Amino acid sequence: MKPIAVIGAGNSGLAMAAHLALEGHPVHLWNRTEKNISQLSRTKTIHCSGVISGKAKIKLVTDNLCRALEGVELILITTPANSHRQLAQQLSPFIQSDHKILLNPGRTFGALEFEYIFKKNLNKKNIPIAESQTIIYTCRKTNEDSVNILAFKQPVWIASKCRDQSEEIIQSLPFCLRQHFIPIDSLLKTSLGNVGPVLHCAPVLLNTGWIENKKTIFKYYYDGITITIANYIEKIDEIRVGIGRNIGVELEDVATWMQRSYQVKGDNLFQCIQNNNFYKTIDAPQNLHHRYLFEDIPCGLVPFEDLGIALGVNVSLITHLINFACSLMNFDFRKNGRTLDRIGISKRALNDLK
Amino acid sequence: MKPIAVIGAGNSGLAMAAHLALEGHPVHLWNRTEKNISQLSRTKTIHCSGVISGKAKIKLVTDNLCRALEGVELILITTPANSHRQLAQQLSPFIQSDHKILLNPGRTFGALEFEYIFKKNLNKKNIPIAESQTIIYTCRKTNEDSVNILAFKQPVWIASKCRDQSEEIIQSLPFCLRQHFIPIDSLLKTSLGNVGPVLHCAPVLLNTGWIENKKTIFKYYYDGITITIANYIEKIDEIRVGIGRNIGVELEDVATWMQRSYQVKGDNLFQCIQNNNFYKTIDAPQNLHHRYLFEDIPCGLVPFEDLGIALGVNVSLITHLINFACSLMNFDFRKNGRTLDRIGISKRALNDLK
Repeated sequence: MKPIAVIGAGNSGLAMAAHLALEGHPVHLWNRTEKNISQLSRTKTIHCSGVISGKAKIKLVTDNLCRALEGVELILITTPANSHRQLAQQLSPFIQSDHKILLNPGRTFGALEFEYIFKKNLNKKNIPIAESQTIIYTCRKTNEDSVNILAFKQPVWIASKCRDQSEEIIQSLPFCLRQHFIPIDSLLKTSLGNVGPVLHCAPVLLNTGWIENKKTIFKYYYDGITITIANYIEKIDEIRVGIGRNIGVELEDVATWMQRSYQVKGDNLFQCIQNNNFYKTIDAPQNLHHRYLFEDIPCGLVPFEDLGIALGVNVSLITHLINFACSLMNFDFRKNGRTLDRIGISKRALNDLK
Repeated sequence: MKPIAVIGAGNSGLAMAAHLALEGHPVHLWNRTEKNISQLSRTKTIHCSGVISGKAKIKLVTDNLCRALEGVELILITTPANSHRQLAQQLSPFIQSDHKILLNPGRTFGALEFEYIFKKNLNKKNIPIAESQTIIYTCRKTNEDSVNILAFKQPVWIASKCRDQSEEIIQSLPFCLRQHFIPIDSLLKTSLGNVGPVLHCAPVLLNTGWIENKKTIFKYYYDGITITIANYIEKIDEIRVGIGRNIGVELEDVATWMQRSYQVKGDNLFQCIQNNNFYKTIDAPQNLHHRYLFEDIPCGLVPFEDLGIALGVNVSLITHLINFACSLMNFDFRKNGRTLDRIGISKRALNDLK
């Protein structure tokens, strides 16, 4: 049985490593920062609770990529999307033709960014790379070596640039993972189906004071997304859906997505959030240096904006939101953001993505 | 003794009417909305507490402008600046050559907007109109007919388009008011010295969730202006000060203004706010339909932006802030904002203001 590499020991990396190990698969768990896996690399045990439970023995826990990929065919990437580019660079020297890569998730254009970097570095473009729409678990890392898996999500979309590739990756997944994915035709559907930026960026900015003031804790969705913020999110989301329509991809709006994903009811996004019991448990970020801004703007809003402009869609509301975020955080989110140019997609090549 | 007209029965209108009446002056108090003065127009008594106290008998309380101006020479305007244009229109038919008008305060370009409307409607431009930098009281209306005056502020700047006019208005003020004002040379100094937009617009937007969520109340400055927000305010404020420098007006920055106005210490704005005991008592707005946005954006940020652009100053941070506010509130704050064009100031005429 070939070992499976799980890249990243955060919430979803820990969950995925434990899940695979408890199903009997040898797992190589890699994390960039050694000090965040110092205990785990000694004990090689993840304590898993929730819908899957047990002590998961991990074959190898390391910050050495070369070792992590030894004998591996399947590489499951769980790191934040804003680290994808650097990770693709680091992976390049070790990539072999039998490797298969799945981004959990890719956010917007994750698979295209990996392909672009591999092609640039290796002049190889046939490594199968797929991206999922989201992670398959609802989970929280509770300690360096423990994770609580609250639920499996509804089956999650998975897509590659070519349908063949996503089929190949799906077939290479062990059954315990495969059953939670549905292959779909277009990578645009996973990339534009990324609702994170819509649900994260504006609400964090519009709750800056509440997040930074440590006197009171609040629930991110349930308390923080008030009626004005929910209405604004729906306007931002209309642009995302409009970009999809323009390029020939039918997307569900964020309220419909929430109704389907969490089995909740509501006439609009605000009602759906208020009726979502799971959201009553999710705390707001502790500070502004959070992936809700630093992952979701460069790997979500920025590619939405850039693709929209290339297609002639009016994205001014997204532009205003990014500009304001740049001003407030004193950070150029576009500079390292996933623009089409940065992932090597010319305007003419857009049609190939459909 | 001629009666004095006080226009507007809000916080400062009530304070000013009571102050004048308790000093023995006959006062005509006007308010646009009758139902907000229904009790007061029967009792004609304002209950005043704080640094001035007593039952102030008001000669006339009315929503009829014609009656309010009968026999009046001095007109003290205390309404929000976003109502100035409409008010100037309503006043036009009744304006006589011996009238003197003081805006408490004018926000940015209030005196110029009044002059423009009077000139357009009456072809008269010699009515003396002055604007103050802020109201002279720290006060809160506690009921329809009661006001608490916590303190007099440090002497407040007052300016007109011509120095002669502001002298004329200062001389026409009763001593009890006159002692709280300092006439200054340039109307640009009062208009650009308007720190309200800098202290109000961004913090309200960045606390949208906290304001709309009714579960917790917070103190506007003390809790709501966190370190990231304070740093951002200082960047916005640099633009305001830079516009002043560009047009030849030396302005103090917002932290220095706070140190002087409230006698507080601090190395930066955040520290000044944390050290300002008065700010520990000021609650945040109850909702977003508040003058901190609907007065301070059109009569503060918008003229800052427009003047800055005319002068070639980089105002992009202010532009981003206004754009974001327009998106969130689904309202075009520039449409009725005090652009130079709207108050009849051509780019060439800018030099006349210096």
